[in-house]
Amino acid sequence: VSDLREIVWLDGGVCAPRGFVAAGVRCSLKQSGLDLGLLASEVPCPAAGMFTTNTLPGWPVVLSRQALADGGAFSGIVVNSGVSNVATGEAGLALADEMRSLARAAIADRLGAEAGQVLIAQTGVIGELPDAAKIRTGVKLAGLGLSRAGGPAFAEAIMTTDTRPKIRACEARCGAGTFRIGGSAKGAGMIAPRMATMLAFVTTDAKLTSAAARGLLVPAVNRSFNRVTVDGDTSTSDSVFLLANGVSGVDPAVDRDAGAAFADALSALCEALALDLVRDAEGATRVCKIEVCGAATDADALVAARTIAESPLVKTALFGADPNWGRIWAALGRSGARTDPARLSISIGGTPVLDRGTPCPGGKAAAAAKMLQPEVTFMVDLGLGSGAAHYWFSDLSDEYVRINADYHT
Amino acid sequence: VSDLREIVWLDGGVCAPRGFVAAGVRCSLKQSGLDLGLLASEVPCPAAGMFTTNTLPGWPVVLSRQALADGGAFSGIVVNSGVSNVATGEAGLALADEMRSLARAAIADRLGAEAGQVLIAQTGVIGELPDAAKIRTGVKLAGLGLSRAGGPAFAEAIMTTDTRPKIRACEARCGAGTFRIGGSAKGAGMIAPRMATMLAFVTTDAKLTSAAARGLLVPAVNRSFNRVTVDGDTSTSDSVFLLANGVSGVDPAVDRDAGAAFADALSALCEALALDLVRDAEGATRVCKIEVCGAATDADALVAARTIAESPLVKTALFGADPNWGRIWAALGRSGARTDPARLSISIGGTPVLDRGTPCPGGKAAAAAKMLQPEVTFMVDLGLGSGAAHYWFSDLSDEYVRINADYHT
Repeated sequence: VSDLREIVWLDGGVCAPRGFVAAGVRCSLKQSGLDLGLLASEVPCPAAGMFTTNTLPGWPVVLSRQALADGGAFSGIVVNSGVSNVATGEAGLALADEMRSLARAAIADRLGAEAGQVLIAQTGVIGELPDAAKIRTGVKLAGLGLSRAGGPAFAEAIMTTDTRPKIRACEARCGAGTFRIGGSAKGAGMIAPRMATMLAFVTTDAKLTSAAARGLLVPAVNRSFNRVTVDGDTSTSDSVFLLANGVSGVDPAVDRDAGAAFADALSALCEALALDLVRDAEGATRVCKIEVCGAATDADALVAARTIAESPLVKTALFGADPNWGRIWAALGRSGARTDPARLSISIGGTPVLDRGTPCPGGKAAAAAKMLQPEVTFMVDLGLGSGAAHYWFSDLSDEYVRINADYHT
Repeated sequence: VSDLREIVWLDGGVCAPRGFVAAGVRCSLKQSGLDLGLLASEVPCPAAGMFTTNTLPGWPVVLSRQALADGGAFSGIVVNSGVSNVATGEAGLALADEMRSLARAAIADRLGAEAGQVLIAQTGVIGELPDAAKIRTGVKLAGLGLSRAGGPAFAEAIMTTDTRPKIRACEARCGAGTFRIGGSAKGAGMIAPRMATMLAFVTTDAKLTSAAARGLLVPAVNRSFNRVTVDGDTSTSDSVFLLANGVSGVDPAVDRDAGAAFADALSALCEALALDLVRDAEGATRVCKIEVCGAATDADALVAARTIAESPLVKTALFGADPNWGRIWAALGRSGARTDPARLSISIGGTPVLDRGTPCPGGKAAAAAKMLQPEVTFMVDLGLGSGAAHYWFSDLSDEYVRINADYHT
């Protein structure tokens, strides 16, 4: 998490920024817990989104991507967990469209005005049509429950195998005044970059056009959600949304100071949520940051870092607290990044284990204690240039296997 | 395994073809079991090899690749398990070169003649220098032990986390007479294509030039070892060798019948060994064949099949006997292969679960029993063209995690 002085962390999640209300209710799509969330802005506002690169996305991704491309003013987002509405044929498309219309009506009823468009996200099992009656009841209930205190319930309603909700909010000051950003995200498996992961919902009371919102969201996501991986399985439902209702009156576009403050705060919030996801990854017992430097290019550094972060052998070694850096070497060698064995150096938690191609005497023994920490850093210097990149990833535990073998359909 | 009528399966492994001797001995590189193997032809002969595409390979790969490129006559192969001699700096290169020279002298002593060149392979932990004294003792012992009965001991000496040796041999007849092919391979983790896996040693008493041996080995490996995956971790030591000593007098190059018979027998032997590897993969409880058809191109089919075969979520579902075909859908969508959701069909063990984009009613329930078999087939029809490919892969079990978390350095 960034330690920028200007940022103050707040409670409230997506409702911390002024002018947002939310709700989370149970409509029995999941076996237990809240499973339908609704987020609304009191004034229709610009929005931006980024979606999975998976070529077989769910209907909610299809609809939300199209709505953002068409433009206009948005009043909120409706989301359910338990069933993803992916691979459900035409019946699934009709249901997603109905769910969106119902949410728009519920927001209009609750806020007493004509609502703007509504975005949609769904997460859970693939290939099963959600129960329409449950969805209808859930959306109605959520509309009635919309409140400024709804951030935590909304965060709980989007969870699947997550063990805890991810809730972050902050306030930042610039010459033009103060603005707030809030967010929630859900993991916790089928997590991979391109684009990362998961669902994330970010709100702000800063004033942005939809183009400005997108221009700020893309780099923030690329530095956060696109730098975490749990299992390399890019999901069919990944979506990040940003709603900017302008209630604070602060416009990051009017001066450079405000623009920089907003970009920094948004990046810090997204990075905090992304790390929350990795720390709560399915079965995770330990988190690792892999930092690659000295690559011939930044692209080489990125593919090297990602290959290490996705290697089952590296991830099981992390679980076993084993300083077996040979698996990092092997992953580098199959990554496609340019390598020269005589220039390659590796350290674990700051302890050198390989120095320009030659193992460091006693390195493994010295690194063993570092591997026992809950968060470990691997550093790789390819010794070839100035390309650099990092990734955050979780370990591969027997608990991950159990969760995903038992997550029955 | 091919059911070609001309092929008769034999015992003896690498020593089944006439004119080969082998040995496996213990020199204490591993905690228990045989760990150094020597294979020799009674007459120096042509050889071919294929090696890992990993850009940071071990010294044995560097030396053997160069020796085959330089050409000449080969008398055998020396191999050890326990320590791979990868990432060991210049000291590792000197040791591998010495090991090869010692093996050449041992073969010459035992066979009472000037020996040809010797190839080398090493497998095990990365980043540790093998104990030179143990290697010297082991090579000497192995030379003294070379015999026609040495196939099984050789197969045991190359094992690491394998639970059983992989030994195959066959005899085939053609117009020109009979010839034999024998082989052994080792897995069992860090198994991935490009190229596959592992170490494999294939011998034949057919008469081949080194160019012919390579021309026959490449397609056989591409159809076998390059179509299996355990964990997607292409190793630094992967090597497949073919020694062809010509003792049978049958030359596959002289007539089309002999050439076809040899190519078929070699493919069948490599496929049998490759399947042995997957069945004995680390922690494997179930094996799956993924067949992709209807792809726009063969390359699309291959990347689709491989992405499914390497998906941790597909592999844990296989372990849990869960017909959760949504994970196949999700993997297809991130594979890079062209897809159209409305044309995509999936079946499990012959039971349709998705028909041109729409889930089959009752499909999952019907497929559940198929998932309980020890070998399961997933079929994917992309509905776009005539591209096809298949892969064999193992499940991801808690035992895989345990083995790789505990495989301490």
